Amino acid sequence: MIKAIACFCLCFFSFYVVRAEQAIPAEEGGSGATQEISMGKVRLSFSLDAAGEPVYAVTYGDRPVILLSRLGFVLAEDTTFYKGFTLLGVERSSFDSVWKPVWGEVREIRDHYEQLRVHLRKSDRRVAGAAEGGAAGSTAGPGRLLDIVFRVFADGVGFRYEFPRQPGLKYFVVTDELTQFHMAGDHKTFWIPGDYDTNEYPYTTSALSAVDNAALVAASTDIAVRVAPDRYAVQTPLMMKSADGLYINIHEAGLMNYSTMDLHVDAATLTLSTRLVPDAVDNKAYLHAPAHTPWRTIIVSDKAADILASKLILNLNEPSRLATTDWIHPMKFVGVWWEMQTGKGTWSYSDFADSLDAAGRLIPNGRHSANTANVERYIDFAAANHIGGVLVEGWNVGWEDWFGNWKEDVFDFVTPYPDFDIRAISAYARSKGVQLIMHNETSGSATNYERQMDTAFRFMTAYGYHSVKTGYVGKIIPRGEHHDGQWMVRHYVRVAQKAAQYHVMVDAHEPMRPTGLQRTYPNWMACEAARGNEYNAFSNGNAPDHETILPFTRLMGGPMDYTPGIFRIQGYSAVPGRQVHTTLAKQLALYVTIYSPLQMAADLPENYAAHMDAFAFIRDVPVDWDDTKILAAEPGDFVAVARKEKGAANWYLGAITDEHARTLDLPLGFLDAGRKYKATIYKDAPGADWKLRPEAYVIETVVVDAKSVLKLWLAPGGGSAVEIRPF
Amino acid sequence: MIKAIACFCLCFFSFYVVRAEQAIPAEEGGSGATQEISMGKVRLSFSLDAAGEPVYAVTYGDRPVILLSRLGFVLAEDTTFYKGFTLLGVERSSFDSVWKPVWGEVREIRDHYEQLRVHLRKSDRRVAGAAEGGAAGSTAGPGRLLDIVFRVFADGVGFRYEFPRQPGLKYFVVTDELTQFHMAGDHKTFWIPGDYDTNEYPYTTSALSAVDNAALVAASTDIAVRVAPDRYAVQTPLMMKSADGLYINIHEAGLMNYSTMDLHVDAATLTLSTRLVPDAVDNKAYLHAPAHTPWRTIIVSDKAADILASKLILNLNEPSRLATTDWIHPMKFVGVWWEMQTGKGTWSYSDFADSLDAAGRLIPNGRHSANTANVERYIDFAAANHIGGVLVEGWNVGWEDWFGNWKEDVFDFVTPYPDFDIRAISAYARSKGVQLIMHNETSGSATNYERQMDTAFRFMTAYGYHSVKTGYVGKIIPRGEHHDGQWMVRHYVRVAQKAAQYHVMVDAHEPMRPTGLQRTYPNWMACEAARGNEYNAFSNGNAPDHETILPFTRLMGGPMDYTPGIFRIQGYSAVPGRQVHTTLAKQLALYVTIYSPLQMAADLPENYAAHMDAFAFIRDVPVDWDDTKILAAEPGDFVAVARKEKGAANWYLGAITDEHARTLDLPLGFLDAGRKYKATIYKDAPGADWKLRPEAYVIETVVVDAKSVLKLWLAPGGGSAVEIRPF
Repeated sequence: MIKAIACFCLCFFSFYVVRAEQAIPAEEGGSGATQEISMGKVRLSFSLDAAGEPVYAVTYGDRPVILLSRLGFVLAEDTTFYKGFTLLGVERSSFDSVWKPVWGEVREIRDHYEQLRVHLRKSDRRVAGAAEGGAAGSTAGPGRLLDIVFRVFADGVGFRYEFPRQPGLKYFVVTDELTQFHMAGDHKTFWIPGDYDTNEYPYTTSALSAVDNAALVAASTDIAVRVAPDRYAVQTPLMMKSADGLYINIHEAGLMNYSTMDLHVDAATLTLSTRLVPDAVDNKAYLHAPAHTPWRTIIVSDKAADILASKLILNLNEPSRLATTDWIHPMKFVGVWWEMQTGKGTWSYSDFADSLDAAGRLIPNGRHSANTANVERYIDFAAANHIGGVLVEGWNVGWEDWFGNWKEDVFDFVTPYPDFDIRAISAYARSKGVQLIMHNETSGSATNYERQMDTAFRFMTAYGYHSVKTGYVGKIIPRGEHHDGQWMVRHYVRVAQKAAQYHVMVDAHEPMRPTGLQRTYPNWMACEAARGNEYNAFSNGNAPDHETILPFTRLMGGPMDYTPGIFRIQGYSAVPGRQVHTTLAKQLALYVTIYSPLQMAADLPENYAAHMDAFAFIRDVPVDWDDTKILAAEPGDFVAVARKEKGAANWYLGAITDEHARTLDLPLGFLDAGRKYKATIYKDAPGADWKLRPEAYVIETVVVDAKSVLKLWLAPGGGSAVEIRPF
Repeated sequence: MIKAIACFCLCFFSFYVVRAEQAIPAEEGGSGATQEISMGKVRLSFSLDAAGEPVYAVTYGDRPVILLSRLGFVLAEDTTFYKGFTLLGVERSSFDSVWKPVWGEVREIRDHYEQLRVHLRKSDRRVAGAAEGGAAGSTAGPGRLLDIVFRVFADGVGFRYEFPRQPGLKYFVVTDELTQFHMAGDHKTFWIPGDYDTNEYPYTTSALSAVDNAALVAASTDIAVRVAPDRYAVQTPLMMKSADGLYINIHEAGLMNYSTMDLHVDAATLTLSTRLVPDAVDNKAYLHAPAHTPWRTIIVSDKAADILASKLILNLNEPSRLATTDWIHPMKFVGVWWEMQTGKGTWSYSDFADSLDAAGRLIPNGRHSANTANVERYIDFAAANHIGGVLVEGWNVGWEDWFGNWKEDVFDFVTPYPDFDIRAISAYARSKGVQLIMHNETSGSATNYERQMDTAFRFMTAYGYHSVKTGYVGKIIPRGEHHDGQWMVRHYVRVAQKAAQYHVMVDAHEPMRPTGLQRTYPNWMACEAARGNEYNAFSNGNAPDHETILPFTRLMGGPMDYTPGIFRIQGYSAVPGRQVHTTLAKQLALYVTIYSPLQMAADLPENYAAHMDAFAFIRDVPVDWDDTKILAAEPGDFVAVARKEKGAANWYLGAITDEHARTLDLPLGFLDAGRKYKATIYKDAPGADWKLRPEAYVIETVVVDAKSVLKLWLAPGGGSAVEIRPF
């Protein structure tokens, strides 16, 4: 560990050295001058137009990516903070370094970009004129300053607004951000509705101009809280593909103290306009200069695989803020969960909150899953199969009416149901070498959680829990706030900070959409924030192309707790036709195609028992990697990924397809030259089909080397998982 | 203490015994029947009108107090929950008992009333018809139940709505409460604007029909946050006097989980309509049946003194919820405070948040009052004069930009400024037998306080603080909530509960207006929640009649931390004409006329040093009483009160007048017959005048007995304080 720390420090110092050497002193610029920076095929240009409005454009080689697009704000303190600017100067700098994530898809990440910082000033003529006693029309006063910082990488652009410390703008309110992305064509677009409270919609693939979310929002009654007032708005990460084969992804990075960005689609001009999630009084952000927005990111390439391999978003996030990270350990886990999702058991101990006996105690319904015996069964399974953790939901009192009532005091996070003997269970887990994962569902009542958070984390520590799954199902309290607004963004960050203080890892369900904060808070392991496997349990589920779109959209922001590994694909539900929309082999492949340092094996022990030969892949697949190769990818169609185990020579490969069967030829050139490997292939059996024969798989073993090309047939809705170990 | 506890238990049990014996079984009633109950001259009638709308009226002898007035709600779940009711039955009961407050104006309180409970039911025809699959127009279903409980006392009426546990109404939202008070005449009214965030307006005396707050709200720039959207709305406690001499006070009791009631004045009909303070999304209350509203109170008498003597509001509050109360001790205190109010010192350590030295430390402004030496000076003064406590404001970091920015993370409640050596100060206070009073200003950021409250109270405990003054200056966070809305009401109660857990007494500034909760949480000693003496320091101040109105309005709800005791009446401010609007003798009288178990001696030690003979009254006056007699009272004109020291034979008398000089003849018949007393009279000197000669006082001693009539001349804006001790 000493060595790793030393190396990290070296990288850290080199950061400043490189910046200082290559920085160029500020120069005065005229309003009309266009500033440009580029790296590889990506070029960014910035200028002020005749009205002093900042605008920018992006090209990839000779192809336009973003046509001339506006920048700026409406502030409560200045409603035209998007025009009348003059350019005070620019600074250019270059940066090239390498840093090591605590965990992740690769061991090292290169952070290489050209930076352009423009210093803008808006005179405060209007302000002075309006102020009491000020001379009308006077231009005296400090004005208001705005910096815009652009970073151009080989695979895209990031930019953000910075508000320097200044006398004319101290505490201020962002009423609207006006950033636009003027697209150059009516691209094929993979989108979900712009919603203030949920990211759990299924994806729609359409032309950009055809975006209209109204019908989908209305029909999505399987999502608890939906607030999507703009039918033409979409969420980021937004994935697009141009007619001439450019892949373009728009998202944001480093969202820590701001509200989330939706994009309004103007079909006529093909322009995407920022729509920030509002707070209870329709403000978008409260800032205190010096302050900055998150980065707005545009990742672009003519190869889909480059989008998935991009580290642009992580690079734009701040380095770890944690004092130590040696207590952070990626792991797999099972959980008392799928039986509740499928209706076999219940989260609640009783069926109704007012179902009480004469002594005022809840009358048990007899189907409560989080009981001591059942939890110990999961602990046994985990221990027998080298699964690190066991998640238990429904262990604490309050589940009888936990949800849907906008009720503030739902859970206290420390009181177990009478049939959950936390002392005995903790001791049992410890004796078996298994970690228990705490579950803190808030029902969206963040105020209730915040006032009890210290108590909750002390409780976790007392019982030896080192991970917590948080949840925010329901309308948010403070009432009027939204899951993706600034107040909640700051809440989720506070939870990660508080967890770090107690050396606890976080798996956040229903948080704001991720933007790479796992770099800054590496104990914030994973998020849900998308439509997970669970929708196959309690709703019509996820279409077979869903997992081929996720890596290009939601996963651009960070790891997802998708909860793969369902082996009993059909027949688990009383609802006719309900099933998982993949083959069993594809469930295995997801452990590689969907990266997360916390991966659940979501099915029941008894369902795994029927296929222990297939479960071997879940048992063996790592959750932390030295390297990752995107072997093949097309959003909505297929994804194939190979990853090298952290600190070992083994590779794991996952390949998935949409509803269409296809054969992928995957060259294994990433293997060590001249070395022989044993490949164990978990694949769809001939005739397999997600709908008709989803559980048909075969396992075969072949010898491969760096010259091999793996030919994998994927069934409709199918996939393949491969373990490649050197001899 | 054992004896006191035993006595309390006895009272507690008698409560149930009496109720059970006198309860009358429910009887079926027709919609048209009028139900009546009465006690003494007060009579309440209730009926359902032809539309099934509940209505009530109140009379006093043969005089109408409240003409027929509506009752009911608009709920999110039932927008006409005010009509279509049928009467299921009524219950009548009587109650007569005595209870002992932990502290207060009297040793024992009689709780004597007649109760009428009406059970109402509204059929759910509309609901069933609207529900999916329900038969249109069906009257099947449980309907919705509403109880209204009326209690008639000899001095008024209290009533509240109760929502029983029922299948048709579980979690529900109060959109509006429709309770009205239809007044019988265009009464003389003492009012402040109906405001969601402040109670710190000066009082206006006008005809009821002349209520219009717009100009006053606009002009009140000395109040930080004003939200008064209805120009015809007033706050409670609302004091009125009819042309024929009836005194009527409308307020509420037991406000713990609801929003505060404002009253909209319809000048044409002289009807007051409930306007509940809204939350961020314009809802008024979130309830969960079984639930109830606060009590709506109407206190009435033909004697003004009866209004001040009324215990109706206290009686309608719930008994103490604290497990023990022996740690609660009323006391007086001085504080490092008036020097900041008058501009001599500052709360902040530096003048600007960004006034930093090269090492990033704040640069001191040299005028920071909460420094170790200055605080020890106050401790010395307190110790020398038998003052129990010292309050220190401005001790903790964050005051440079604490206010006015709607900033969430202002204070951490545990980090002292560098010149405040909390360890040394705590030890010094302990060595002198003086209690330090903690100051937790939140700037209105309740979320920030809640998430740090455990830490803050642990910090207090560690340093031996047993009292805390809380503050909420500024717009509330959660943004969109208001000081007097349900969310904040629950917050203030939570603070009292948390404080009790740590055996800490609370003095809440800027809370919702008090409604007698000091009975339920007797550690919640005092509130501000009105225009205090401080306005004389930083604004145009309080008119000379202000303190003669306060007992009839704000003080009806509970003790006020008015901060009396200013001796340097003029010349403390750099602003010309700024002064306290009383004489010095009146400042002494306020210690008796304004009851609080926490009473501040608000002026500076050096100002007291100039008048130590007068200070003797402050030193000696108790803050807890065995008995209280209202000797003379007329709202807006004068108040004279005598109180008997707790556990002693001494009486203390305070008499104050408005801007007019007057002579009061006060019979001392409350003294023990046949016993001689020495009366020390602190009174305005001849020629004294609040404006021209406010600090002129004389102290004289006379012998009095129960047959004496004390003739007190009160200067314009003057008063008199008298200590009466038996020989």
